[in-house]
Amino acid sequence: MKTLSQNAAATGSAQSSVAEVARRARAASRRLARLSNDTRNEVLLAAAQAIEKATSTIIEANSKDCQAAERAVAAGKMSPAMLARLRVGEHGVQEMAARVRDVARLADPIGRRLAATQLDDGLVLYKESCPLGVIGIIFEARPEVVVQVSSLTLKSCNAVILKGGSEAAHSNEALVAVWRECLNGFLVVPADAVQLLQTRSDVMELLSLERDVDLMIPRGSKELVEFVMRNSRIPVLGHGEGICHVYVDRAADMEKALRIAVDAKVQGPAICNAAETLLVDEAIAARFLPQIFARLREAGVEVRGCSRTRALLGGQNVVPATEQDWATEYCDLILSVKIVNGVEEAITHINQYGSRHTDAIVTEDRETAQRFLDEVDAAGVFHNASTRFADGFRYGLGAELGISNSKLHARGPVGLEGLTTYKYKLFGDGHIVAEYARGERQFQHKTLS
Amino acid sequence: MKTLSQNAAATGSAQSSVAEVARRARAASRRLARLSNDTRNEVLLAAAQAIEKATSTIIEANSKDCQAAERAVAAGKMSPAMLARLRVGEHGVQEMAARVRDVARLADPIGRRLAATQLDDGLVLYKESCPLGVIGIIFEARPEVVVQVSSLTLKSCNAVILKGGSEAAHSNEALVAVWRECLNGFLVVPADAVQLLQTRSDVMELLSLERDVDLMIPRGSKELVEFVMRNSRIPVLGHGEGICHVYVDRAADMEKALRIAVDAKVQGPAICNAAETLLVDEAIAARFLPQIFARLREAGVEVRGCSRTRALLGGQNVVPATEQDWATEYCDLILSVKIVNGVEEAITHINQYGSRHTDAIVTEDRETAQRFLDEVDAAGVFHNASTRFADGFRYGLGAELGISNSKLHARGPVGLEGLTTYKYKLFGDGHIVAEYARGERQFQHKTLS
Repeated sequence: MKTLSQNAAATGSAQSSVAEVARRARAASRRLARLSNDTRNEVLLAAAQAIEKATSTIIEANSKDCQAAERAVAAGKMSPAMLARLRVGEHGVQEMAARVRDVARLADPIGRRLAATQLDDGLVLYKESCPLGVIGIIFEARPEVVVQVSSLTLKSCNAVILKGGSEAAHSNEALVAVWRECLNGFLVVPADAVQLLQTRSDVMELLSLERDVDLMIPRGSKELVEFVMRNSRIPVLGHGEGICHVYVDRAADMEKALRIAVDAKVQGPAICNAAETLLVDEAIAARFLPQIFARLREAGVEVRGCSRTRALLGGQNVVPATEQDWATEYCDLILSVKIVNGVEEAITHINQYGSRHTDAIVTEDRETAQRFLDEVDAAGVFHNASTRFADGFRYGLGAELGISNSKLHARGPVGLEGLTTYKYKLFGDGHIVAEYARGERQFQHKTLS
Repeated sequence: MKTLSQNAAATGSAQSSVAEVARRARAASRRLARLSNDTRNEVLLAAAQAIEKATSTIIEANSKDCQAAERAVAAGKMSPAMLARLRVGEHGVQEMAARVRDVARLADPIGRRLAATQLDDGLVLYKESCPLGVIGIIFEARPEVVVQVSSLTLKSCNAVILKGGSEAAHSNEALVAVWRECLNGFLVVPADAVQLLQTRSDVMELLSLERDVDLMIPRGSKELVEFVMRNSRIPVLGHGEGICHVYVDRAADMEKALRIAVDAKVQGPAICNAAETLLVDEAIAARFLPQIFARLREAGVEVRGCSRTRALLGGQNVVPATEQDWATEYCDLILSVKIVNGVEEAITHINQYGSRHTDAIVTEDRETAQRFLDEVDAAGVFHNASTRFADGFRYGLGAELGISNSKLHARGPVGLEGLTTYKYKLFGDGHIVAEYARGERQFQHKTLS
């Protein structure tokens, strides 16, 4: 661990308590709140350049992590997939820099006027977007998260406290050092805008600092997200499961239904917006199920069916679905299939078993679609489109921090806006409430455009 | 408690488990999501009428509560203030009905288009406001909360589970019975949109039902709010303390500063938006402090000062302020006063001790004001106006559920919008992601107005 402590100044944390790190982040956030969009973009472009210039340093640090990871894989203590996510080559560094430049091009999320009301002559109220303050992020492997999160938080005037996995310690440290050195080159930008925590024991302390940290974002396994949600006194933005449904209605166009059902399952089966359950209206089951079954089998998908599905397709072809299947995110080429007696039962099933992520209906009946979209309780409700579209980039948000199943704050794919809150700014000229209470003045409440 | 169980059917809960109540609320919320604004308003107007018609029943139930409360006051077990909040006369019932009609007049919070993007030809994404689903509310005394919350949740297509204080059991039950009977008169509106819980033990179970309850709103003492926040697995919308500040800058107009400082403390000292601490720039302290001190003394305000304040005003006039004073919400005619060396120290003090509710600066210097408004971390930041304006009605929100110190979801005075979330509705025509992944189609991401 010598390298880690040697670099303490560069990463800003190794010799401080977590509470001190958070206090410094809070102080930095105040200065960040004053930066113009032009300044922030200038810093981002400089950071992109600094990352490119440091390519060999970054790759060198990363290869230390990879060597340790290779030994761990050989010893059966790490999955090869995790090693793959860890590795950063020259192209990877270029990609990081390119993403930082992308963030600089995004619209300014801060200072957007959300409402304006003239309360009275000379008394005007503005509701304006502003930074949250300090963001904590806990992530695993993938060193590019350092760069992605540092750029998104800077663009939104937030300070960030990063805690990466120990498997990527050298890579993360090198990237944070490059980033902080770049910030140090700008007088107005505090280097403590980005700080890195090193040890697992820091996490519990971080989760208790609700006064100095405004939002926690866990990115990684389901276990990590659940751990953070259970233990945090700070609000958490994290997605839980993606149990998405495709419902094929009696009024579905058969070809659209086949395309969408296959795409929703097969195009990215490990992604959270993939479908896990196909619901089929009994009125078209006999016609639709054999066709979709053939296509799914061709794509290598295992089908687990309800008893009616099995009766229709032949019990030998279809694994029986258990109650547990309806509540399972397979992250794999497995699809559960259930015959329902219409849109009403489909909605009931989805609201009972779904994870409120994304659910789609295939139908040519607009009223049925309307009903499905209004009554299904999910962040995304789709008509005649694949659930796989539920994604920040596909939605045009420009960047994605994750997908939130929560109904509060940010719902669905979360972009830069998820790193903001708002404040009410009231401009008066000596106005006091007593005059309104005494009836000497009246409120106008005139909406300004 | 005979009356309570007799009325079980009317209030919809006394014989059910809390989990069943919540499931019924969830089912009701689905039907509510389909109601047009016209239907909702029609129901609200009918409910207002039903309340007026039931005036004598309501007053009779209330007088039972008041008789018990009078005995409790006589025995020293209840404060006279609580008895006062409990009592409902004929005028009170009229007021309740009037408020319901006010809610009917508010703009529809549901189905507002927050964003619209054409992702590609025939593939259009809408971000639309929608109901949260099921709201839980825990409140004390004040039976009019039943009517206020029932009308706001109906207007926003949410189901609500009410838990009032036992001191108002008969009043709350009578009001809920009138409301549910009115809902029963409309075929499309489920009576389970409003349900009442009776016992304190129900509360803990309610707080664990995160699958069927989307938001908890505690309204009452600080202890109640903290209890709910500590024990809830459901997100909580509740305001904590209101430690508000007025900072009088060196560039302040003296007369405006005097008006605002007095109003902020005196006009409603028990309300959360009243000022608790006055910060005075050292550059004008010698001129300003004696004047404000005279006015505050005239209004009966006790001043607790820092050592410099005491040196300036005479130690015999001013109680010494302790560290604890800076972090105290007095809810009384007490004001702590501190001399600071300028706007920087004022901001630092507020961010350290404040409750992120509302803070004001008095200055004629626009740059100083701008800095204060950007750097003070609070839901309301005011320039030359009293903190007492921080209120849903004064802001023109039309209704206020409370004031939130949280930065997520709803911040500051919370109106109807706080009872909504949003969903993404995607309309396609058989669109699948595979075609974009293969490069056969490109996203357009065209913002629609």
